[in-house]
Amino acid sequence: MSQLSETSGVPIASIKYYLREGLLQPGERSSANQSDYGDEHVKRLRLIRALIDVGGLSIATARSVLAVIDDPETPLGHVLGAAQHAVSNASTFEPVTEATNGTRLVDAFIESAGWIVASDNPGRMGAARVIDSYERIGQPELAIIPEGYARASELIARVDLDWVANSQGMSSKAETVIVGTVLGDALLASLRRMAQENRSCEIFPNSPHKAVTEHTEKARS
Amino acid sequence: MSQLSETSGVPIASIKYYLREGLLQPGERSSANQSDYGDEHVKRLRLIRALIDVGGLSIATARSVLAVIDDPETPLGHVLGAAQHAVSNASTFEPVTEATNGTRLVDAFIESAGWIVASDNPGRMGAARVIDSYERIGQPELAIIPEGYARASELIARVDLDWVANSQGMSSKAETVIVGTVLGDALLASLRRMAQENRSCEIFPNSPHKAVTEHTEKARS
Repeated sequence: MSQLSETSGVPIASIKYYLREGLLQPGERSSANQSDYGDEHVKRLRLIRALIDVGGLSIATARSVLAVIDDPETPLGHVLGAAQHAVSNASTFEPVTEATNGTRLVDAFIESAGWIVASDNPGRMGAARVIDSYERIGQPELAIIPEGYARASELIARVDLDWVANSQGMSSKAETVIVGTVLGDALLASLRRMAQENRSCEIFPNSPHKAVTEHTEKARS
Repeated sequence: MSQLSETSGVPIASIKYYLREGLLQPGERSSANQSDYGDEHVKRLRLIRALIDVGGLSIATARSVLAVIDDPETPLGHVLGAAQHAVSNASTFEPVTEATNGTRLVDAFIESAGWIVASDNPGRMGAARVIDSYERIGQPELAIIPEGYARASELIARVDLDWVANSQGMSSKAETVIVGTVLGDALLASLRRMAQENRSCEIFPNSPHKAVTEHTEKARS
């Protein structure tokens, strides 16, 4: 196990925790106090760390995501839906049990955008909860779905589904789709932060900022 | 306190926890075992719940976000940056201390997109960590920043900065900007899930799905 820790860069305590929580399969026992671990253990550990550290998933969410990856029976057409549900069990996406202003506004948005969305899509719940929250905290002017957000989401989904379609023949297609969903959320949140700063410089050109390019120039000189 | 719990819908145990953690200011003590709470306590509790339950923030992150809202000295031009740093202290956005393939790829992307981004922008770190993760888990074909993601982020930032500019004269401008940043991440992740399902129906038209509109029709009949 100490060798597995060294190769993967994951501390022994964490490896033991993942074994206990069922995220990592035990190695083959070779003697009373030693087990053999292979390349697939190293690969699995790196995947677990990517989902938790970079994707921000909880242990419980990572477990349900890995279950979808491990199930060879999941047809590709269902992988995306399964991935969506597995990565969406945070409180943000909890089912809204009764019709609220939020669900009504989201359903009206779906209809006007002409989108086809199942009633149990976790995003429908999430968006409704955000809208309801804006009203509850006294910011009703934010309780809308901006046109720019809708068009941006269509662009993003186009990229995402191209990935799904292109991964048809791949052996680890479920893993690719799921990793793209989880880490894609993190990548998009990151791009949003960079684009906000860039747009801020366009609108408020006199704000002080130290751009990456200047920083790079300095490092070079 | 039981009345505050009833009005706000937040359990007493949670209220005590927020008081202990410094998220909520204590009420005015009116007798040995009673305190007076006002409207601002109810409003604050709803804000805390929105940040944690819907925005998905940890207690520690919620605390730093609220500190930015509470500081009357933060100039509006810095609120967005302060909000970005406060909501980005999850492991996803941890500083990358040395140049990696990820930082090089992200910096090349920033330069080719012509964006102005500070070297300590949390999104720059987050994107680099995602790219490095894709390579580490053996999915180097995902280690790119798709053109569609970049264009989508620009659309999103345009909406976000319009909000910031429009909130210039508002009394609770810092709160508006921060709530829009935190809940905006949740709204965008939700819209992505709906748009993915819609796009999936366009690409795989024979997949079974129960659309909201059908669901609505059934509920009506």
